[in-house]
Amino acid sequence: MSRTRVHNLFVSLDGFAAGEHVTFDEPIGGAERLFGQFDGRAIHGMQGVDAPFTVDRALTTLWGQGIGAEIMGRRKFGPQTGPWPDDDWQGWWGDEPPFRTPVFVLTHHHHEPIEFANGTSFHFVDGTPAEALRLAAEAAGGQDVRIGGGPSTVQQFLKAGLIDFLHLAIVPIALGRGTPLFGDLTGVESRFDIETVTSPSGVTHQLWNKKSGT
Amino acid sequence: MSRTRVHNLFVSLDGFAAGEHVTFDEPIGGAERLFGQFDGRAIHGMQGVDAPFTVDRALTTLWGQGIGAEIMGRRKFGPQTGPWPDDDWQGWWGDEPPFRTPVFVLTHHHHEPIEFANGTSFHFVDGTPAEALRLAAEAAGGQDVRIGGGPSTVQQFLKAGLIDFLHLAIVPIALGRGTPLFGDLTGVESRFDIETVTSPSGVTHQLWNKKSGT
Repeated sequence: MSRTRVHNLFVSLDGFAAGEHVTFDEPIGGAERLFGQFDGRAIHGMQGVDAPFTVDRALTTLWGQGIGAEIMGRRKFGPQTGPWPDDDWQGWWGDEPPFRTPVFVLTHHHHEPIEFANGTSFHFVDGTPAEALRLAAEAAGGQDVRIGGGPSTVQQFLKAGLIDFLHLAIVPIALGRGTPLFGDLTGVESRFDIETVTSPSGVTHQLWNKKSGT
Repeated sequence: MSRTRVHNLFVSLDGFAAGEHVTFDEPIGGAERLFGQFDGRAIHGMQGVDAPFTVDRALTTLWGQGIGAEIMGRRKFGPQTGPWPDDDWQGWWGDEPPFRTPVFVLTHHHHEPIEFANGTSFHFVDGTPAEALRLAAEAAGGQDVRIGGGPSTVQQFLKAGLIDFLHLAIVPIALGRGTPLFGDLTGVESRFDIETVTSPSGVTHQLWNKKSGT
């Protein structure tokens, strides 16, 4: 059974999981404080190999386990809007994107695929969450599909009932503004069994596993 | 920097981490209750791929990350004592031992190496913890070395100051008898930074990272 999973989704105490406007200078739209205690590698569950094994590390390293493909929103790939400019943009990650699987970027505008030597490839799809998931699941070859964010993308997939697992990292800050994670998803928690665990870092981790039969 | 790590060491509230006498029928020497809530795969951090992602799973899956070799005590390999009988015993794990790395079994008695197709190989060494660790670190090729137990073996390595990381899973049962983990290691905790986290299963996980400079 291939699952659809969300990992390392950092959310503020007031429910924001990213800033409002992504720019080249602010990839998280001004909500960088959400990730203040974590370096970029920890966000991806790939802390430096020499770092201590902490509770946060244990939880965030689930990110890559058994994942065969990712789906991400366009704003996670880059700050551009509208038709894609001819700017050789290949994402935020340089020559070694950490995904190492096919990645499906949701966009209404055509873009040729991009391939990296480390196993990462970006494919640009215009479709519903269910359609994108069908493509990603096929590419994942029996492994799980990760919904990589941002929050609007996760919200769409939650709304469509397509999420089997969700890992929230609740950061003890009041962000005040940004991209809300839940929006009008009132009562969405009722479809999940939820484990909550506190970390010495101050982060609260929640593991949402879809209830069987839902 | 290659580290020496202990993972998924289940210990009772009274400090026992295994039973007293390992037999063919009781691989954990009558202390199977320690692992009551976990199947064998969870003990090894390799829960069924379809199992929910729980706090316990997140913590136990650190077991295999970045490990290049294991060292285990003789009683973890088998219940025999004295010179090895000519009984074709190849460990408890059948044709697919979960280690997939070289494994060094501490024993005073000679035994030829055993190789499995899945990357696991057993090598039998008669030496001090430091000597065994030198062999294992070399075999690990820059990755970390796991001290796989049992408790007496972990205790020896702790006593020798050779453990860089220790993950304890404290199970809320009073075992009453068995193999103690700490023995005379009074104050050993002072050499470590310790994070404690409770799991909804009732297990308390502790992550001991050696203090820098110790």
